Amino acid sequence: MGKGRLEAFSDGVIAIIITIMVLEIKVPHGESLDDLAPLLPVFLSYVLSFVYVGIYWNNHHHLLHASTTVTGAMLWANLHLLFWLSLFPFATGWMGENHFTPLPTALYGVVLLMAAIAYYVLELAIIRAQGPDSLLKKAVGRDWKGKLSPLLYIAAIVMTLISTALAEAIYVAAALIWLVPDRRIEHVLPAHHDH
Amino acid sequence: MGKGRLEAFSDGVIAIIITIMVLEIKVPHGESLDDLAPLLPVFLSYVLSFVYVGIYWNNHHHLLHASTTVTGAMLWANLHLLFWLSLFPFATGWMGENHFTPLPTALYGVVLLMAAIAYYVLELAIIRAQGPDSLLKKAVGRDWKGKLSPLLYIAAIVMTLISTALAEAIYVAAALIWLVPDRRIEHVLPAHHDH
Amino acid sequence: MGKGRLEAFSDGVIAIIITIMVLEIKVPHGESLDDLAPLLPVFLSYVLSFVYVGIYWNNHHHLLHASTTVTGAMLWANLHLLFWLSLFPFATGWMGENHFTPLPTALYGVVLLMAAIAYYVLELAIIRAQGPDSLLKKAVGRDWKGKLSPLLYIAAIVMTLISTALAEAIYVAAALIWLVPDRRIEHVLPAHHDH
Amino acid sequence: MGKGRLEAFSDGVIAIIITIMVLEIKVPHGESLDDLAPLLPVFLSYVLSFVYVGIYWNNHHHLLHASTTVTGAMLWANLHLLFWLSLFPFATGWMGENHFTPLPTALYGVVLLMAAIAYYVLELAIIRAQGPDSLLKKAVGRDWKGKLSPLLYIAAIVMTLISTALAEAIYVAAALIWLVPDRRIEHVLPAHHDH
Repeated sequence: MGKGRLEAFSDGVIAIIITIMVLEIKVPHGESLDDLAPLLPVFLSYVLSFVYVGIYWNNHHHLLHASTTVTGAMLWANLHLLFWLSLFPFATGWMGENHFTPLPTALYGVVLLMAAIAYYVLELAIIRAQGPDSLLKKAVGRDWKGKLSPLLYIAAIVMTLISTALAEAIYVAAALIWLVPDRRIEHVLPAHHDH
Repeated sequence: MGKGRLEAFSDGVIAIIITIMVLEIKVPHGESLDDLAPLLPVFLSYVLSFVYVGIYWNNHHHLLHASTTVTGAMLWANLHLLFWLSLFPFATGWMGENHFTPLPTALYGVVLLMAAIAYYVLELAIIRAQGPDSLLKKAVGRDWKGKLSPLLYIAAIVMTLISTALAEAIYVAAALIWLVPDRRIEHVLPAHHDH
Repeated sequence: MGKGRLEAFSDGVIAIIITIMVLEIKVPHGESLDDLAPLLPVFLSYVLSFVYVGIYWNNHHHLLHASTTVTGAMLWANLHLLFWLSLFPFATGWMGENHFTPLPTALYGVVLLMAAIAYYVLELAIIRAQGPDSLLKKAVGRDWKGKLSPLLYIAAIVMTLISTALAEAIYVAAALIWLVPDRRIEHVLPAHHDH
Repeated sequence: MGKGRLEAFSDGVIAIIITIMVLEIKVPHGESLDDLAPLLPVFLSYVLSFVYVGIYWNNHHHLLHASTTVTGAMLWANLHLLFWLSLFPFATGWMGENHFTPLPTALYGVVLLMAAIAYYVLELAIIRAQGPDSLLKKAVGRDWKGKLSPLLYIAAIVMTLISTALAEAIYVAAALIWLVPDRRIEHVLPAHHDH
């Protein structure tokens, strides 16, 4: 199993996830502004999820870029990550349609949390496959982002009991932390242009 | 992050957008011509959007073809463009189902406008990444199409207050301007065959 | 614009078309055989369309395989073909849900006819791009399949006025004619393995 | 027709199948745990199908990896496999929405059975194309997994008459058998990195 196939399949799945999320913004029957207004929270949750899936796509590529071989463990760790990402459309739609009420907001955080854990597991699987001199291990260093994010998602899930606005603010903040691509990997790895 | 991955992911997202738009043409329950007739405006708006997404795919490739490296700014400018393109199915469906009434027609123009701006931002990001001797800068020249299009979309949005037929005519005209692939880039760049 | 990009984009669109057609087989609410039975015509029309899209994918690749450069005319001829293929899910769903009644069966034939014409136009665009010594022109020869198919579709469309069963039989027969990949092109072109 | 195109198209179709299955988990209108609870069986059937499609993607790649040329028979055997895989979203949705009642559970088994047979037919087509010294034939050996799985699916289909819980247990067990990638092929084939 070559790396190229794994990348192409992951690209395909992530491209579909990011696009079918938009199907949750159901076309309203009326033609007035009043028909459009209830879609605003659905739209906002779509924007947030689009950014999150974009971040995952970006970081996923940095991760695989740093890897050379594909083991069975990596393959299933990757499918495990895609599984949780595939729940984004559902979690996004439910949170948006219910205007950011507590339970849907908490479930959104659970999906974010599980995806973050799955990403971390994939990172470990790649590092293990690379052995003691793992280039990726050096590249990610202590990976404070990877460790902080799950804590933020847990904080946001608990926060939904008190204020969903604050929970959403945490989701936005956690996205902003990741928005910058992981330059640590870029610095360690030599310059490289895919064909 | 290599250019190949960026192209493949964008291809995937655009292929999905152009295809799921057709899902807005809901299969009618009846079997007569009367059941099919109300779908005509939905079909016409689908044709228009299919052409627009085709234009974006075409020009997007000319743009990336002219670029050599991928920077973080380019990556997010590209995702930003894909975001606005992903709203085509919604805007198309709403305009079609409401038979080209003013507000849906104006919203369609807003999505066109935002996509045009996002395309322009991506162009700037690539030119900046290429530095003062940017090949793309030379290739696009003054880019009169890129500057005229947003003005046409704004004109059409305002026009929906007076006549949606005229607004639609502007959308069609703006598409026709772009229908010819951007030969300027082809002329400056040396011949090249991907695979 | 390289051939590889055109192939990859077409592959993506055709892969999505062949897959979203299955969404027209709506999951029934009941759990008995009586709930499943009304889906039989939808399923049968899905099988027919799956075979047709498979044929187009197959022949499309033989066509592009025989081509070396990509012109603007080829690009738009290709998008034009993809446009008609993208209407397969709608035409299939309407014909299936209405149990092969005349008008939906005729519309299905119209989509088949337009796709066949679009395929022929793409063939001509490639032959023209290759000039007087066109390898593809030699390969397709007189192209009796490409000329017979539209006649069969027209015959089937007219036939829906008399017997939809006969019209469907013609669609099945026309598919069987194409089911064998176009060996003419294989014979003329030298052996070739994509990377 | 090169192997790369066949792999890319299959990747695309499988990526779409695995992702649109999630659309069967319909976003509930309410926002409480009671609204979410009925979705548990739909979710569980999604997990099972996600694993199955993941297994097919994985093994499909090992299969094609072991092959060198693409014949017409292989191409149609591959489309035949994709056809049965494309019915996973429907079978999964029907089984989940009906809470694992007998008929939907049996139909799920039928789709699994047909996909397993289609996979076996593809295997035979590749072995035949490779001739008497087939590398794949050596690699798969007696293929006890490929022969046991259909028997398990048949057992589960019959079992739905007695206990759907036992039938589901068999589906899970059959998935676990396949979860380990087919190391036999890996052992015989030399190490290989795509592109």
